[in-house]
Amino acid sequence: MKRNIHVEELRAAPVSEMEVELVERKGKGHPDTVIDGCAEAVSRALSQYYLEHYGRVLHHNVDKGLLVGGRSAPRFGGGEVLEPIYIMVAGRAFTYVPYRERIEPVPIGTITLNSIRGFLAETFRYLDPVKHVVVDYKIRQGSLDLISLFDRGGEVPVANDTSIGVGFAPFTDSERLVLEVERYLNSPRLKSDLPEVGEDIKVLALRHGRRVSLTIAAAMISHLVHDASHYINVREEVESRVRDLAAKLTDLEVDVVVNAADDPSKGVYYLTVTGTSAEAGDDGNTGRGNRPNGLITPMRQYSVEAVAGKNPINHTGKLFNIAAQRMADRVIKEVRGVREVYIRLLSKIGSPIDHPEVASAALVLEPGYTLKRVEGDVMGVIDEELQHITDLTPEILSGRLGVII
Amino acid sequence: MKRNIHVEELRAAPVSEMEVELVERKGKGHPDTVIDGCAEAVSRALSQYYLEHYGRVLHHNVDKGLLVGGRSAPRFGGGEVLEPIYIMVAGRAFTYVPYRERIEPVPIGTITLNSIRGFLAETFRYLDPVKHVVVDYKIRQGSLDLISLFDRGGEVPVANDTSIGVGFAPFTDSERLVLEVERYLNSPRLKSDLPEVGEDIKVLALRHGRRVSLTIAAAMISHLVHDASHYINVREEVESRVRDLAAKLTDLEVDVVVNAADDPSKGVYYLTVTGTSAEAGDDGNTGRGNRPNGLITPMRQYSVEAVAGKNPINHTGKLFNIAAQRMADRVIKEVRGVREVYIRLLSKIGSPIDHPEVASAALVLEPGYTLKRVEGDVMGVIDEELQHITDLTPEILSGRLGVII
Amino acid sequence: MKRNIHVEELRAAPVSEMEVELVERKGKGHPDTVIDGCAEAVSRALSQYYLEHYGRVLHHNVDKGLLVGGRSAPRFGGGEVLEPIYIMVAGRAFTYVPYRERIEPVPIGTITLNSIRGFLAETFRYLDPVKHVVVDYKIRQGSLDLISLFDRGGEVPVANDTSIGVGFAPFTDSERLVLEVERYLNSPRLKSDLPEVGEDIKVLALRHGRRVSLTIAAAMISHLVHDASHYINVREEVESRVRDLAAKLTDLEVDVVVNAADDPSKGVYYLTVTGTSAEAGDDGNTGRGNRPNGLITPMRQYSVEAVAGKNPINHTGKLFNIAAQRMADRVIKEVRGVREVYIRLLSKIGSPIDHPEVASAALVLEPGYTLKRVEGDVMGVIDEELQHITDLTPEILSGRLGVII
Amino acid sequence: MKRNIHVEELRAAPVSEMEVELVERKGKGHPDTVIDGCAEAVSRALSQYYLEHYGRVLHHNVDKGLLVGGRSAPRFGGGEVLEPIYIMVAGRAFTYVPYRERIEPVPIGTITLNSIRGFLAETFRYLDPVKHVVVDYKIRQGSLDLISLFDRGGEVPVANDTSIGVGFAPFTDSERLVLEVERYLNSPRLKSDLPEVGEDIKVLALRHGRRVSLTIAAAMISHLVHDASHYINVREEVESRVRDLAAKLTDLEVDVVVNAADDPSKGVYYLTVTGTSAEAGDDGNTGRGNRPNGLITPMRQYSVEAVAGKNPINHTGKLFNIAAQRMADRVIKEVRGVREVYIRLLSKIGSPIDHPEVASAALVLEPGYTLKRVEGDVMGVIDEELQHITDLTPEILSGRLGVII
Repeated sequence: MKRNIHVEELRAAPVSEMEVELVERKGKGHPDTVIDGCAEAVSRALSQYYLEHYGRVLHHNVDKGLLVGGRSAPRFGGGEVLEPIYIMVAGRAFTYVPYRERIEPVPIGTITLNSIRGFLAETFRYLDPVKHVVVDYKIRQGSLDLISLFDRGGEVPVANDTSIGVGFAPFTDSERLVLEVERYLNSPRLKSDLPEVGEDIKVLALRHGRRVSLTIAAAMISHLVHDASHYINVREEVESRVRDLAAKLTDLEVDVVVNAADDPSKGVYYLTVTGTSAEAGDDGNTGRGNRPNGLITPMRQYSVEAVAGKNPINHTGKLFNIAAQRMADRVIKEVRGVREVYIRLLSKIGSPIDHPEVASAALVLEPGYTLKRVEGDVMGVIDEELQHITDLTPEILSGRLGVII
Repeated sequence: MKRNIHVEELRAAPVSEMEVELVERKGKGHPDTVIDGCAEAVSRALSQYYLEHYGRVLHHNVDKGLLVGGRSAPRFGGGEVLEPIYIMVAGRAFTYVPYRERIEPVPIGTITLNSIRGFLAETFRYLDPVKHVVVDYKIRQGSLDLISLFDRGGEVPVANDTSIGVGFAPFTDSERLVLEVERYLNSPRLKSDLPEVGEDIKVLALRHGRRVSLTIAAAMISHLVHDASHYINVREEVESRVRDLAAKLTDLEVDVVVNAADDPSKGVYYLTVTGTSAEAGDDGNTGRGNRPNGLITPMRQYSVEAVAGKNPINHTGKLFNIAAQRMADRVIKEVRGVREVYIRLLSKIGSPIDHPEVASAALVLEPGYTLKRVEGDVMGVIDEELQHITDLTPEILSGRLGVII
Repeated sequence: MKRNIHVEELRAAPVSEMEVELVERKGKGHPDTVIDGCAEAVSRALSQYYLEHYGRVLHHNVDKGLLVGGRSAPRFGGGEVLEPIYIMVAGRAFTYVPYRERIEPVPIGTITLNSIRGFLAETFRYLDPVKHVVVDYKIRQGSLDLISLFDRGGEVPVANDTSIGVGFAPFTDSERLVLEVERYLNSPRLKSDLPEVGEDIKVLALRHGRRVSLTIAAAMISHLVHDASHYINVREEVESRVRDLAAKLTDLEVDVVVNAADDPSKGVYYLTVTGTSAEAGDDGNTGRGNRPNGLITPMRQYSVEAVAGKNPINHTGKLFNIAAQRMADRVIKEVRGVREVYIRLLSKIGSPIDHPEVASAALVLEPGYTLKRVEGDVMGVIDEELQHITDLTPEILSGRLGVII
Repeated sequence: MKRNIHVEELRAAPVSEMEVELVERKGKGHPDTVIDGCAEAVSRALSQYYLEHYGRVLHHNVDKGLLVGGRSAPRFGGGEVLEPIYIMVAGRAFTYVPYRERIEPVPIGTITLNSIRGFLAETFRYLDPVKHVVVDYKIRQGSLDLISLFDRGGEVPVANDTSIGVGFAPFTDSERLVLEVERYLNSPRLKSDLPEVGEDIKVLALRHGRRVSLTIAAAMISHLVHDASHYINVREEVESRVRDLAAKLTDLEVDVVVNAADDPSKGVYYLTVTGTSAEAGDDGNTGRGNRPNGLITPMRQYSVEAVAGKNPINHTGKLFNIAAQRMADRVIKEVRGVREVYIRLLSKIGSPIDHPEVASAALVLEPGYTLKRVEGDVMGVIDEELQHITDLTPEILSGRLGVII
């Protein structure tokens, strides 16, 4: 069956040439990112379990999470958590599996608690996943009709919902900047040099013409910061390092401000015991943070779908967002003459995932190129990616293709 | 202080002239819409309480919610809920108020439970807010530094976060179609004619050129539907009525499919006891559904911020999204020559909300118009709206300006 | 098979002749009584459902409950609940029933929520079961081996545990006094005369020789009590009425003190918005309150088993306590020469409930009577009651034989 | 002020001479014992914290707990936990302390989670307190009037409730047997010899004349038991060892049955993954298990009050039960001529705890002794213990005087 692929020209300037641009990234310790990570960790662990025991990933969807902030008392040189962070992951999964004439139970609770605690342990240096967090879950057996959608042996799975996936390429300088700054501030090297910098880092770029204002909120680890002057030293060192990094990444003029809400006259500093604002009242919901490319880009086309926690087999809310991103990256890399591309995929509930309702590309072309000239190549990339869409699943499971990057 | 307002031209075709367009709306009974509505109901009730007792709305932020689907057994002519829907709203609020030399307690629990149940009662005809739902909350006293941001008497409040608000106008035909179709299907008139149609209605439009495919998922009320043929009659009647409505709203050619996942050969129909899929396993999170204009528009600029549950005083994640939408609407209405407008507002934590970090408009112009000619008028609209931004608060509180529309 | 029944003489004075006697009753609105009532309400409603749908009561055990007190702000002439009471009932039940070749679902959630709210509505006048209470549950399908114990068709059920039941008769004057005083203070008539008196009433009697000190704690309904002098009037009226009642019930000399912890000099009165201390921090657990005879009698033989919430078919922790009480009552009524009797029943897991491991009676005889003379009659009563023990089930279900009296 | 102490003769045979006697003990891994231990662990940790930071133990009462059993799949040679045990401890405590002109926060969450997990780690060998358990709590700031009861500097605290404490001595042979058998089966030595025996051990004795039937339910650790014959070997070894132990402890004739509900023909054995039935559906509530002497003795005078979780400063529901037991022990040890003694203490809310409403002793005397002869000595013991009742607090806190023995 021929796929419904469509390519059109977007008669617009690329985003990098717009005068104003806004880009945001919630760092790996931000409450929304954390609860995304928890949901995704559960989905991965469940998938692995199903794969090992039943030879394939069974249906699940654990993409609804809630993180309720705790209460803490940070202070220079010390501090403690008063009340724990509360994390709940909710959704559906096979908790019993009909297998070889038997009904086999799945250790859903053990898988869920372990994977969430494991994720937290990998993410934070000073948040104790046992002492500082209450983890709970509400995951029940899925309803039967969805179950049947999986029952197709070696065939391509059918979509479990009508979902939209969107991807774009390439990144603008502002976008790369935001992504790389947060990654740098959460890199092992920075943590080794400046251990005081916590994991909850939010980066926001406002580009106006050729000038970028980078606003960074970075939680500091209270017991590693002796006093206010130490704190200010660290903050200035972060600003200085980010400026250096920015100079390597872009020719744009970059201003950097860290922790703009500090108010020394009132003793207000961004101090945390654990490295995340979740310890003291900042809450989180799954699907509210970065898109699968690691950014929030309100001036771009993108999907509001949560990717974290959805199953990597037939939930197009996950697969189509990841696939669209890959298609966009390949188009930029492989098709000469395309300056910017947006890929939009729409699934049809009950139809095979390699045959979307529509796969649509919108292109900003380089001067001198016509749609006609590039159209075929773009369609070729999309068609090929759709043909191999089921290859995404093992990539996602192995972590080579991440949804939290 | 002069405001930082900026206007640029978006050298692009309007969305209505793109070949492919995707628009979605999660109807008022969809789990994500419901949990948005719960969070917003709590914020409104809290605001009213603070206003009545302390003369102004105190700080709160209850924008994190979780709805865990229940378990049900619908059947033609009957059915019942087996396990209730579980709803939790989380966040921060004043639970004690220092007032006139005393510490006054706030009936936070009573306000929360009543407002959620009240919202559910208004939303559904067959979902019993007491029998079919467990309502809980985790709302604690906010941290003290945020509290101080409010303490400014009659002055303009300062932003409590660095947030982005986005709005656009006008709607394309596809967008109006999606909005109006859901509203029609949830209108008193339709419910009177076809009471079988539940409140959980999801509408998705794919426009390809001049042809629109409308995919509608509409939960049916099981005890009102006698059998499969009755069900199919209702489904066909809905399709026919939507086709008629579409003909009035647009010249585009509109195809309508209702409940595409039905499979009579397997006895699969979209039946519910209560009118929402939340009764049987569909979960929800706040901030995952419609944007404040009522739509999900992946091919537009828009903000991923949740609006529901945020306080309408200084949370720019709420105010700036609503303000941006109003500005966009006014620009289209008042400034001749603007074909399409996107407004982007960025707040600065700790600065007065009437002076954003930047207020930026991007315009698609009518042929024959230049940026120079319209720029002043657009800036005038934005400036005026910012000057009166605190007027939004009472509008939101009274419900004249809704975040769930 | 002959039953293992045993009778012995207790060579002791009856309790009424001891010099010191202690008796307590937690009234119907006390947190421990309330959570007992919730558990029992769920068991009854479940039993009715099973009976109607499957012709017999299926296995369940919902005898573990937790009531977490809320937060309230009572004041003379008004007051309000700030945070709700939280009620959770936990246990095991059939949530799916294999029936006629199908697996039928049980509306466990609807049954649980409705029965708890119904119980609360019957118990309190001013506690709103919706506004003032969050109700949740954790009831799961029971394990399979216990299930099989029920599978015996028309035969006598087998005990699901090794449990002890104890009963005694007759009541002493102090015991009757405590029971009747609380009942009177919670009677429709008293509530009509003195509506200010709430449902949470605790009565404790200390008898020393022929003098009884009755200590009564009675929550007052704040919005019905205008001021301190009104409060004191009500308190004195309660004292006076209880003295009058006591004079009718006993020849003992009775002192009455109501709300001994009041301290007008500090403005401390026992005021509540709803009639129960549960609104403001008093918590409750199932099985911690009155025994099935309505009293706590530390100077008597009695069982520590919780009766509320256990199934009335084969849970001997429930049936044997009720049966023992009936046997004791009948022995006193029917067997001349017995002054006081204690019945002790021990079940054997897996054996029919009409054949306990042992049924043992201990008698205090009237002067002039010997064990030999009365033994046969006592054994006859016990044997007959055991023979008809399955008759208790419908009595319990209909409410004619209550566990919360 | 003279204390109200009273002594009377109980003109009865001692329990050991009654023909029938029933005694029960829920072992340290039984769900009710576990949730008692959790509540007590929280109280102790809180007390230590208050003591270290504020020089005295502040008011708290965390004596309401709920343990909801998990779901597991044990099998010979292996098995796993499917869903975790859920533990909640509820109550009141100082979460903020007014201290030296400041309001200091208490790390209530960290204290609670750590102390519960610590208790579980000490209690079980194969239950992982992190992987197999979800721990949560609902502990709020106490109401203000109770708080004031503590505010008395160096004076004797006043009782926070009207509570009854009861103790008796000496133990009968049956009682010692039940206590020692469980302790032996949970001793390091037995676990070293027979590691297969889990911690959830329930012992019940029925003595009829000189013959005792000991019914023991002992959870086995599934991964340590290879198959059915291994299981039966262990069971027989336990029976044999208990018989040997019994022979050393008493001259009574003792029958021993372990795991009477096993049914090899149906493959039913008492197997657990973790050593407790809580892993698979057995729930628990605080205050439902052993009395502070370690036993449940329905044929004795005893108090139904929960001791675990109550504060050891002024909660007479705890202190008076422990004090009464000590008094009883001392009377037997120190006063010649007393064969059996029951001590009953009644507190008066708001009065100093060293002056109870009444302290009453009931004595069974040795032949040849009169009340007159022993009365003074008994009163002396009681008076002395009351005089030093505040000495109990450090003993309880240090663990030298346990409530879970």
